[in-house]
Amino acid sequence: MPTKTETFLQNCWYCAGWGTDVGLGSRDLVVRKIAGRSILLYRTPQGALVAMEDRCPHRSAPLSLGRKEGDAVRCMYHGMLFGPDGRCRQVPGMDKIPPGANVPTLAAVEKDGWIWVWLGDPATADPALICEAVGPADPDWVLKTNAIRIQTNYRQEIANLADLSHVSWVHGETFGGSDDWSLIRPRHKNLPRGIETRYTVRGVPAPNFAKHLFDPAARFDIDVHVTLTVPCNFIMSFRIKSAGDATSGESNGDLLLDTFTSQAVTPRDDGSIDYYFSWGTSKATWFPGIVELMHATNLDAFLEDKRILEGQRERQLQYPDAPQIDIVHDAGPGRMLWVLDKLLEQEASDHVAETVA
Amino acid sequence: MPTKTETFLQNCWYCAGWGTDVGLGSRDLVVRKIAGRSILLYRTPQGALVAMEDRCPHRSAPLSLGRKEGDAVRCMYHGMLFGPDGRCRQVPGMDKIPPGANVPTLAAVEKDGWIWVWLGDPATADPALICEAVGPADPDWVLKTNAIRIQTNYRQEIANLADLSHVSWVHGETFGGSDDWSLIRPRHKNLPRGIETRYTVRGVPAPNFAKHLFDPAARFDIDVHVTLTVPCNFIMSFRIKSAGDATSGESNGDLLLDTFTSQAVTPRDDGSIDYYFSWGTSKATWFPGIVELMHATNLDAFLEDKRILEGQRERQLQYPDAPQIDIVHDAGPGRMLWVLDKLLEQEASDHVAETVA
Amino acid sequence: MPTKTETFLQNCWYCAGWGTDVGLGSRDLVVRKIAGRSILLYRTPQGALVAMEDRCPHRSAPLSLGRKEGDAVRCMYHGMLFGPDGRCRQVPGMDKIPPGANVPTLAAVEKDGWIWVWLGDPATADPALICEAVGPADPDWVLKTNAIRIQTNYRQEIANLADLSHVSWVHGETFGGSDDWSLIRPRHKNLPRGIETRYTVRGVPAPNFAKHLFDPAARFDIDVHVTLTVPCNFIMSFRIKSAGDATSGESNGDLLLDTFTSQAVTPRDDGSIDYYFSWGTSKATWFPGIVELMHATNLDAFLEDKRILEGQRERQLQYPDAPQIDIVHDAGPGRMLWVLDKLLEQEASDHVAETVA
Repeated sequence: MPTKTETFLQNCWYCAGWGTDVGLGSRDLVVRKIAGRSILLYRTPQGALVAMEDRCPHRSAPLSLGRKEGDAVRCMYHGMLFGPDGRCRQVPGMDKIPPGANVPTLAAVEKDGWIWVWLGDPATADPALICEAVGPADPDWVLKTNAIRIQTNYRQEIANLADLSHVSWVHGETFGGSDDWSLIRPRHKNLPRGIETRYTVRGVPAPNFAKHLFDPAARFDIDVHVTLTVPCNFIMSFRIKSAGDATSGESNGDLLLDTFTSQAVTPRDDGSIDYYFSWGTSKATWFPGIVELMHATNLDAFLEDKRILEGQRERQLQYPDAPQIDIVHDAGPGRMLWVLDKLLEQEASDHVAETVA
Repeated sequence: MPTKTETFLQNCWYCAGWGTDVGLGSRDLVVRKIAGRSILLYRTPQGALVAMEDRCPHRSAPLSLGRKEGDAVRCMYHGMLFGPDGRCRQVPGMDKIPPGANVPTLAAVEKDGWIWVWLGDPATADPALICEAVGPADPDWVLKTNAIRIQTNYRQEIANLADLSHVSWVHGETFGGSDDWSLIRPRHKNLPRGIETRYTVRGVPAPNFAKHLFDPAARFDIDVHVTLTVPCNFIMSFRIKSAGDATSGESNGDLLLDTFTSQAVTPRDDGSIDYYFSWGTSKATWFPGIVELMHATNLDAFLEDKRILEGQRERQLQYPDAPQIDIVHDAGPGRMLWVLDKLLEQEASDHVAETVA
Repeated sequence: MPTKTETFLQNCWYCAGWGTDVGLGSRDLVVRKIAGRSILLYRTPQGALVAMEDRCPHRSAPLSLGRKEGDAVRCMYHGMLFGPDGRCRQVPGMDKIPPGANVPTLAAVEKDGWIWVWLGDPATADPALICEAVGPADPDWVLKTNAIRIQTNYRQEIANLADLSHVSWVHGETFGGSDDWSLIRPRHKNLPRGIETRYTVRGVPAPNFAKHLFDPAARFDIDVHVTLTVPCNFIMSFRIKSAGDATSGESNGDLLLDTFTSQAVTPRDDGSIDYYFSWGTSKATWFPGIVELMHATNLDAFLEDKRILEGQRERQLQYPDAPQIDIVHDAGPGRMLWVLDKLLEQEASDHVAETVA
């Protein structure tokens, strides 16, 4: 195990799961591990989201083993009651609340079907920084959602998502079906908090999972547009068209299947991630059964990733000092990790400036 | 995981389980982990208890994988035979016993149904320091025994047992039934090796586990007397009376149920404890089925403790530097941990004095 | 856990299993952990063995999760293709192979039914250093093979195999049957890379596993000849004869059962070993059912060793600084560990010399 502990971006929104994961029931106290911290999530009777450290300030009992009381949560070790602002409202047996009896809270926002928490100072939380996705309730789309956990460092997941050349190899039985994904050159563009990438695939067979739906001889164009933002949110329009004759830019074939996937990856700690994702089609190109097929394929494919990422993690821990060589497909991962590291450096130097000031 | 390793009191009796755990059978070699050491327990054919390190001095094979031969134990790796004094009696293939071929032994005493071992120099072991309990064979009591293991540090178990305010919250479904336990002020008194605590609860509903036995409107007084001694032995008289009219001291109601519980907690290492306990009633207040009900309730309640203590342990390891705030109910835990730490300091300074002398 | 990491002999052949473990099938990519490294094994279509580090030099994905293509293996993360010499043949999407895109290979040899890999520089691998065994295909023998894993350090397994006195105690129910094994004096002789040991057992009852095959009153002689070489290869001729009257040297009784066992122990890392073994009889002394009986007994006996070795390992980790006393039976283990340590010192000083030169 590496001794170095990961430093995570603090001024950043991290996905804490699907909104439907946190209900209004009396037992709905949900705990998520995010960037090394355990975060309690619950809803007030009005449905508002509350996020706070899952740790009683008295003797560290998890509040998630507690009890919801209206908009508050009671620690069920010694009965201390905390409001949604994290301030202690009651210590049974005491008239006064001891100073400091507060639980750190986090800004929490529900958007596009996901719950987002801001790890840094809640006062600085800017909802405009939440990534733009298409939620499962969007009236123009038919999407199904899912989640998995992978034992890897989130930087490896970034490298996985910033370079789709691996579709040809890891996903040959699911999303892929030829080596085309490893031959094309994506077009990357840096964003303030991530990268934007376009892939144009021309005249290829249908993706393997959909092969049986088409004439075997048919060829297709695929236009892909990805936005990847920190920590690791992957938003992709993936359009399958009939083979066109355009020689540059997007394909001018007929749009056969207009798909959209929203994927948010949250580092739990140095060595594991939670992965929340959806996939589906626009209503315009939907047909019966297609989203169910995509949903099953998506899970199969992400379990393919899990296998390779967990094997990779094992070898990286086993050979911590082994050199790595770079290949052409590292351009996307390199850009995205550069953006992440710049933001981390900025936070570190802001922190020094604050400390000195 | 914290890097600091717990230092345990050496001049102290630790409970090694119930006497019935160690039988006279030829295979009855029992091993217990106590304060970081693995201790072998067995009985001679006359029934005398033997306690020694569970480690052959030759190449460290566990003697508990060995064979009983009369009052001796044979290591079943190379056949070395050790008497109950830990001295090697035979090395098969050698005429002479090599110097140093001894296993450290520990003083072991059976009292009130429990086995106790003294971690320090056996010559200094004073049976008068063993806590006073009521054993399951006591003719005046009807008691049932049990044991569980909890993944926590024993200091957290001390804090749990030195403050019964948690009964209202952790044990609301079992021992509790109202918030009264968190409103009363116990009366603590320091002892040379622990604390004595009295709780007086007045005019409360029946404890939840016994509610069905009484008129719902009935109110009760409860007089509690606890002796808690190092490392973490909790001896409690718990008397349920009809509501009386005394305004100070013990209740003057009629004694309805006179219960007694003996609980010994043994730290296995930094992060786990073995917990040996009994509970029951005096023969005078016994009625059919009551001890079976108390036995089942006791296990339920201790599993409630286990859940909260293991959650707490997890958060304490996760947030090793987080500040803790104190509340009024920490008085008992604070006193008991102060007594423990004083004894630990005394041992540390005695050790320095010996080393210098 | 001990912080010191084991240093393993590099200029040494380590057994990587039975030849039949690595087939010609398209999915036959086998990974073995050997001395801290993960080694991929496969066969070319011609059956030649290939051994290389199980780690892609790009981003450390395990090649054992890849795909066989002719005599090459493709990493199924980004499609890089490696020949049996470890050199990268193709990076899909690139015209040129980046410098350094090689996987370290190891010399691999199949001999006597086993696969052997040389951890050091393949150019220095000398097949003459592979131990002499009798393979399961030998026409003069009837042998059955097996394998187990034990959680111990290989030095403890060396100590186990270099001293058969433990047969009396650990294997009383299987190979043993009396305390004779702990009373005799074996004759050891140092070899350049191990030791040779002879045991002569005279006038003993039949080994326990074979007792039912003989008259209970019958007595036997057993002549044993062991060669033990680094890292921990144990080759033994074990001959059961009728009791003779020779007073020195080998027994002059009639040869009743001429058995041979080949055992190769490979350290996986500091705390676990893989153990590949066979046992059986010469065709001349074979009779129906005997090898099946020996096969079952051998596994039983090695599980007896596993239990004691894993218990020993646990105590050694728990008491890292406890002194150990020596007994007469440590002569063999002491010699063999001395030979191993001399070779390790030699490698360390050669390494310093190379570094300085």
